[in-house]
Amino acid sequence: PEWLDDPARFTCAVSAPSKRSKFGGIKSYLAYELTTSSAAAAAAADSPAPSPVWRRYKQFAWLRARLEEKFPAVVVPRLPGTLPAAARYAPECVRRRVGELSLWLEHVTGHPALAGCDVLRHFLTCGDNVEEWKGGKRRAERDRDVGHSFYLGVDVRCAADLQHAEELAKSMKVAHRKPRERFGELESIIDELSTRAIVSFKKNDFAGPCGKATTEGGREGGLHPTPLGTALVQAGNAIRAAGLAATAHARADTEPLNEAVTFYGGLTCGLPELLKLHNTGALSRAKDTQKRRAAGRATNGRANTVLCVCMAEELEVSRAGERIFKRALALFLEGQLAFHRHVVKELEECLQACAYE
Amino acid sequence: PEWLDDPARFTCAVSAPSKRSKFGGIKSYLAYELTTSSAAAAAAADSPAPSPVWRRYKQFAWLRARLEEKFPAVVVPRLPGTLPAAARYAPECVRRRVGELSLWLEHVTGHPALAGCDVLRHFLTCGDNVEEWKGGKRRAERDRDVGHSFYLGVDVRCAADLQHAEELAKSMKVAHRKPRERFGELESIIDELSTRAIVSFKKNDFAGPCGKATTEGGREGGLHPTPLGTALVQAGNAIRAAGLAATAHARADTEPLNEAVTFYGGLTCGLPELLKLHNTGALSRAKDTQKRRAAGRATNGRANTVLCVCMAEELEVSRAGERIFKRALALFLEGQLAFHRHVVKELEECLQACAYE
Repeated sequence: PEWLDDPARFTCAVSAPSKRSKFGGIKSYLAYELTTSSAAAAAAADSPAPSPVWRRYKQFAWLRARLEEKFPAVVVPRLPGTLPAAARYAPECVRRRVGELSLWLEHVTGHPALAGCDVLRHFLTCGDNVEEWKGGKRRAERDRDVGHSFYLGVDVRCAADLQHAEELAKSMKVAHRKPRERFGELESIIDELSTRAIVSFKKNDFAGPCGKATTEGGREGGLHPTPLGTALVQAGNAIRAAGLAATAHARADTEPLNEAVTFYGGLTCGLPELLKLHNTGALSRAKDTQKRRAAGRATNGRANTVLCVCMAEELEVSRAGERIFKRALALFLEGQLAFHRHVVKELEECLQACAYE
Repeated sequence: PEWLDDPARFTCAVSAPSKRSKFGGIKSYLAYELTTSSAAAAAAADSPAPSPVWRRYKQFAWLRARLEEKFPAVVVPRLPGTLPAAARYAPECVRRRVGELSLWLEHVTGHPALAGCDVLRHFLTCGDNVEEWKGGKRRAERDRDVGHSFYLGVDVRCAADLQHAEELAKSMKVAHRKPRERFGELESIIDELSTRAIVSFKKNDFAGPCGKATTEGGREGGLHPTPLGTALVQAGNAIRAAGLAATAHARADTEPLNEAVTFYGGLTCGLPELLKLHNTGALSRAKDTQKRRAAGRATNGRANTVLCVCMAEELEVSRAGERIFKRALALFLEGQLAFHRHVVKELEECLQACAYE
């Protein structure tokens, strides 16, 4: 069983946060710009492109609470944690936050079960009109179709294979318990690396002092006015530049991996609950139902529905994890490739400059 | 004034040292193989190619003493220092020693004034016959044409410009005093780097732990059997391999620079004596001669000869330094270029492997 894709779903880009304030400047906050488009809207030529909307972190948290309430068995990823007040407006924190919120929103808008729901639509499209926002907010909070009534709306087109269901639950348990431990480690390593790279390249790494020494050796060596002196200085500068570029790349290239790890952590923390529902809430009841049916007694399809939803959601979580990591890895490799290509070009130029006679 | 090139000079390659022993194994030593060829011999088609000869460090030192004795005002570079007995046969010490002796012999055989002399010819061509070696040795040691008689054999074709001579001595003093300080520093930095690179890449550098983490994350994450898992493992391995390659390259690529620094130190340590001869022995006497000549008194060309020799030798030292550093720098850049090209290729393959759908 798997979710069917919603052809009308949105895609949404998070960008350009800006600092805003209310109560005459007493409280300030960041608002993120969301630019939403939907395949359906794009296909209909006469519909205007939706205009961007501004949302703040608090509103993301509100949306998440609504989705969690309305969709049991669907894993709504955790949002990135709140930042300490001092770091909230630091450019690198803001940039990272934008990346993390993008991944979160990408998952939510890309999830077939969540994609079409009213509260998400409201969040993505409601403009600056305060009344309109409050109206949608009230509507969503008064919604009676929350929790178990979700299952009533699911159109289950197959019966779950109980053996397959059991195996899937087991493999999910193994597959996603370990990475949570592992990726926690990876996370701290990446963090350490990106801060350490700078120090390491400045202090004791290859490129730094060798670049410095050749540069100074060339300049002070009195060889400076000769072609060799020039070549030495040039090589020194190139090597030093490569060191600095490596530092910048190490930090920039690990950023997507970093964000993927954070997102993955936020995604898989919802798994234990899902697996519990799968095992005790659905699988055991489905077995029960099977027995009742074998004994010729009346059954309803409820257990099958819940089981199918669980299995579809587990597949979705696995796929999302794969997709996110695949992209982060490709970005990381592309960044490193660009760096090494750049160094190759610099070294080629340097060698050419040295090949005077 | 500059030395005229000797068209009959030798070129000589040092290679393949082997451990030998004498007195029935009580004393052991390294013998280096010297393969000599001369442009003149190569041009005469009927002369056989000279066969390689074996020389030990002690014989290099003996040659150096003879050359120094015979050629005043010529800077005979210092030989690399003797090694502690424990390290003498370590492969990396031997490899480095071969490189240093090569540079030394290249300078001596390439020096127009030294190139044709009998003692060098004997050193380069005398075969395994002990009597023959001893005969040449005795001849060289009994040679009466040593020291100042060297000037008698020099054919000076111009009169030195006294102002130019003064300027040259000054600029040599400045140019080569500083690099001796600077390169001493560079030397220790290079040494530190080549030993530290290994530790740094293993412990706290970018490639190491990130490669490890992605590899393990991929393997234990349960993502292993999926294409993404495979890609993660592959990327991890590639990054780790790049880290190891960087270490090896850092060490291998700095080797020529290292040898150049050592050689340059050994070359320039003879400069102060040369400059002293230039300034007090020749320049002041040449000025004196000028005055005597202006007063109509008798003069000989001796001061001019010494001055011209000094100037030619100073030019030779500058050129040798440039040539050596130029080549070492090119080797260093080529090594680094090869490394980065290799990494580019690996990353491209990795990216291709990740681009499954």
